[in-house]
Amino acid sequence: MNDRYEIRLAGTGGQGLILAGIILAEAAAIYDGKNAVQTQSYGPEARGGASRAEVIISSEPIDYPEVTQADLLLALSQEACDKYYYNLKKDGLLIVDSDRVTRVPTNQAYQIPIASIAREATERTITSNVVSLGIIVGITGIVSRTAIEKAVAARAPKGTQEMNLKALAAGLEAAARFRRR
Amino acid sequence: MNDRYEIRLAGTGGQGLILAGIILAEAAAIYDGKNAVQTQSYGPEARGGASRAEVIISSEPIDYPEVTQADLLLALSQEACDKYYYNLKKDGLLIVDSDRVTRVPTNQAYQIPIASIAREATERTITSNVVSLGIIVGITGIVSRTAIEKAVAARAPKGTQEMNLKALAAGLEAAARFRRR
Repeated sequence: MNDRYEIRLAGTGGQGLILAGIILAEAAAIYDGKNAVQTQSYGPEARGGASRAEVIISSEPIDYPEVTQADLLLALSQEACDKYYYNLKKDGLLIVDSDRVTRVPTNQAYQIPIASIAREATERTITSNVVSLGIIVGITGIVSRTAIEKAVAARAPKGTQEMNLKALAAGLEAAARFRRR
Repeated sequence: MNDRYEIRLAGTGGQGLILAGIILAEAAAIYDGKNAVQTQSYGPEARGGASRAEVIISSEPIDYPEVTQADLLLALSQEACDKYYYNLKKDGLLIVDSDRVTRVPTNQAYQIPIASIAREATERTITSNVVSLGIIVGITGIVSRTAIEKAVAARAPKGTQEMNLKALAAGLEAAARFRRR
């Protein structure tokens, strides 16, 4: 069964997207027993403050480690949405932080106020990355809830485990509320 | 000029090799103006506790993001040395932590007591990853000293910047002392 699934997380530096990518890959591989590859590519846009992380998850060994057309794009900035939407598969999922992305290129997107949910759950928007993981897992089921919880707890910076698990729960809960529109 | 350079960092989980890979890639891309791709691949060996991170650095855009034959292998465990040495280029550099790797497959390796250097510089072996970065940069010059210092300071966990910059300096200094043997 080739169930390869490609996820692109895109936004700006400081949003913690690389850590989110690592957590998602480790949830899949270490806790759910799948294979995963996690990549950061840095070009001139990195100097301009853009950031992106990619994760490929598969039951099979992953021979080709590059994300070409993503199955899921998470965009935490307008620039990221504009830049990477055209590289999403035709039936791919677009999830945007509607607090930051106001021009959405399709009426099929999940538009979720991720920063607001992070602030409400943890009093800080810095947890938007982990809220996003909850949303992605809640919508796709790409990894199990147990696996993502273990991976968040293992990778959250010392002293922030509880806050990040709250952010994760808020994302999972938001996924259940929001529907494509 | 195609100066693509492929680095593989291998050892066990908890040694901070993924963070080291991210720091090296960001030194190259954000602070030295090059292109970089940084990758983690997780297969069954990840459940067994093995960990590896790969970094490709180039002046040109990086089309093919996979490390095939590395130019440099850092091995922080015997298992990592045994497993990845055969995938090093013929004239590639092997750097091992001689505190942990006792069977070395070539007399051309840099055998450096990385854990001891970390403990001496920072009273903790957990900084072995950043000592390793200092050694790699000191031996290869693949990124500038300024760039690696900025990248370490930017990515070190809160409150550990000073300790990690000490570890980096100790690694740079060790690189100047050790010669291939």
